[in-house]
Amino acid sequence: MKILNVPLGDRSYPIYIGSNLLSNQDLILKHIPSSQLLVVTNETVAPLYLNPVLQTLQGAKVESIILPDGEQYKTLETINRIYDALLTKRFDRYCTLVALGGGVIGDMTGFAAATYQRGVNFVQIPTTLLAQVDSSIGGKTGVNHPLGKNMIGAFHQPLSVIADTDTLNTLNDKELSAGIAEVIKYGIIRDPEFFQWLTENIQNLLNRDPESLARAIEQSCRNKAEVVAADELEAGERALLNLGHTFGHAIEAGTGYGTWLHGEAVATGMVMAAQLSHLQGWIDQETVDSIIKLISSANLPVKGPDKMSPQQYLDIMAVDKKVKDGKINLVLLKQLGNAFITSDYDTSLLNEVLKRHCQ
Amino acid sequence: MKILNVPLGDRSYPIYIGSNLLSNQDLILKHIPSSQLLVVTNETVAPLYLNPVLQTLQGAKVESIILPDGEQYKTLETINRIYDALLTKRFDRYCTLVALGGGVIGDMTGFAAATYQRGVNFVQIPTTLLAQVDSSIGGKTGVNHPLGKNMIGAFHQPLSVIADTDTLNTLNDKELSAGIAEVIKYGIIRDPEFFQWLTENIQNLLNRDPESLARAIEQSCRNKAEVVAADELEAGERALLNLGHTFGHAIEAGTGYGTWLHGEAVATGMVMAAQLSHLQGWIDQETVDSIIKLISSANLPVKGPDKMSPQQYLDIMAVDKKVKDGKINLVLLKQLGNAFITSDYDTSLLNEVLKRHCQ
Repeated sequence: MKILNVPLGDRSYPIYIGSNLLSNQDLILKHIPSSQLLVVTNETVAPLYLNPVLQTLQGAKVESIILPDGEQYKTLETINRIYDALLTKRFDRYCTLVALGGGVIGDMTGFAAATYQRGVNFVQIPTTLLAQVDSSIGGKTGVNHPLGKNMIGAFHQPLSVIADTDTLNTLNDKELSAGIAEVIKYGIIRDPEFFQWLTENIQNLLNRDPESLARAIEQSCRNKAEVVAADELEAGERALLNLGHTFGHAIEAGTGYGTWLHGEAVATGMVMAAQLSHLQGWIDQETVDSIIKLISSANLPVKGPDKMSPQQYLDIMAVDKKVKDGKINLVLLKQLGNAFITSDYDTSLLNEVLKRHCQ
Repeated sequence: MKILNVPLGDRSYPIYIGSNLLSNQDLILKHIPSSQLLVVTNETVAPLYLNPVLQTLQGAKVESIILPDGEQYKTLETINRIYDALLTKRFDRYCTLVALGGGVIGDMTGFAAATYQRGVNFVQIPTTLLAQVDSSIGGKTGVNHPLGKNMIGAFHQPLSVIADTDTLNTLNDKELSAGIAEVIKYGIIRDPEFFQWLTENIQNLLNRDPESLARAIEQSCRNKAEVVAADELEAGERALLNLGHTFGHAIEAGTGYGTWLHGEAVATGMVMAAQLSHLQGWIDQETVDSIIKLISSANLPVKGPDKMSPQQYLDIMAVDKKVKDGKINLVLLKQLGNAFITSDYDTSLLNEVLKRHCQ
């Protein structure tokens, strides 16, 4: 088992990464210090992991709620179901919520925890690669609004993150690839050595080689923890983690939440960001090619959905959280491993990139 | 104009109290530092004060939204209307919300600000006595749930509080009295001299004598600011501000939100707390009488609604935020000016008090 730390003063917390953690009662109970627990999970994860987790938690007052699976259910209405469960079962402000699932479950459970009785504790038990390497760490919580992704939310840090790598054995290939998209992201924005390692080991990851997966998860969590520690509330550096996300959110909203997986949309968004950076003259064609090649070899899409138009991208991107004073800030690349955020790009080149993806 | 400060480190902010502040462009613009403003108000306040405020704010990109008036609209559905307005008008995460109205508008605007794009700024312009002396200060924001009052919410401090005492001229007598309930509260829990002053000046307040009102508001804000500064997140002392509120919330929920004004319910709740404290042998009959007399002379109710049963109180109180491990914590009195929070009271005496109010 590896232990990393997210150093945030009195909101610091550990990330545990390893095999067989869900049944590790010492570990789990140590990090869930409450007599009232609500486990929040979904229809896909519940049959696989809810009972084992409930057994590990036995002794406390434990309840659970099973939500539908998918980004399209990441809404205020679903949050209301969590509130209803908490209030019906008379959970007080000293309770703890446990997020058992992927990014959607983590984001919603965290937001319910941030807003129930003005804030209660929560613990992340991520069961997808994407959640283990990215969304479970850093305290971003929230839901979507028909007009924009993650538009409603709060920063609310978990008490701990418990990433049991065994849960990846039940992940389908598409979800595994979607998680790899966020892993690749760390390589592109700030860790060129890791990018190189990923290029050499992508087949091992797709084949679920435990050692390779463990290394990829650990290095991703380390990158994420460093960035979050430096800029918890995204006043600066943390925004670099959004490489490909402004484009990706447009794809997710434009095709209807749940049609493209978040990681797939981010993968294509990273290609767009690389291509725009190249058209601006900031990175060479070889770098773009190496990025496209790695993403593509991870079985991720490198071209946008057929049915979207450039204008549709621009309309959705105009309500992204990276907009300031009407200008769309984008994370772009100066070189591999060196990203920056800017609104100082040529709009006609942005259009050129979007057009390329809409043909 | 009086200026008080709420000292909360990098979340500190000023409270301005005075006449003619809504048209004071220097003051208002200094404290609303954003090019995008959404003024949130309601159908009662809008015809009176929205245009003057919009005029003072001219120059910035200003939009407004007018919500229905009343506690029964303090819901997630209404919050959604604020999100819709923000997203439709493409407000970014650097915008500022302006709460123009009473406690309901302030609580909802603050919650929308706490959760829009994971948190934007907001300013409180309270136009009722209750909001000026209590709810606009301290960062408690949120909405009601059918199963409990203020169950969904967040702590989110405003950038400033601008209390224009002229707005009280348009307040109806019932709302004025409801505000006085929270003013009296400060006297009972921590400021016996103020309690004495209120006893002597209650008619002046009801007659809206400007000097008396200004003094009552200032002294209330000073008390509130001191308590919030000492305990921002209500880990201890701040809970004393909830004197009468657990009973009061039960009355509000039990009669249907909007039937009793919040201040009216709190007034009766304070009577219940005083009576229970007396039955416990902690305060003498004379103290109870002085509390009932002052509340009554402010034209506030001192007896619960006819149609509620003791069991109904207990059921609703069991999901109050003051519950811990199944025990209902109550704010009770050791003496006038000395409140404490306890679950160590005789349940049969609590029942006795509730029965008295249900006859």
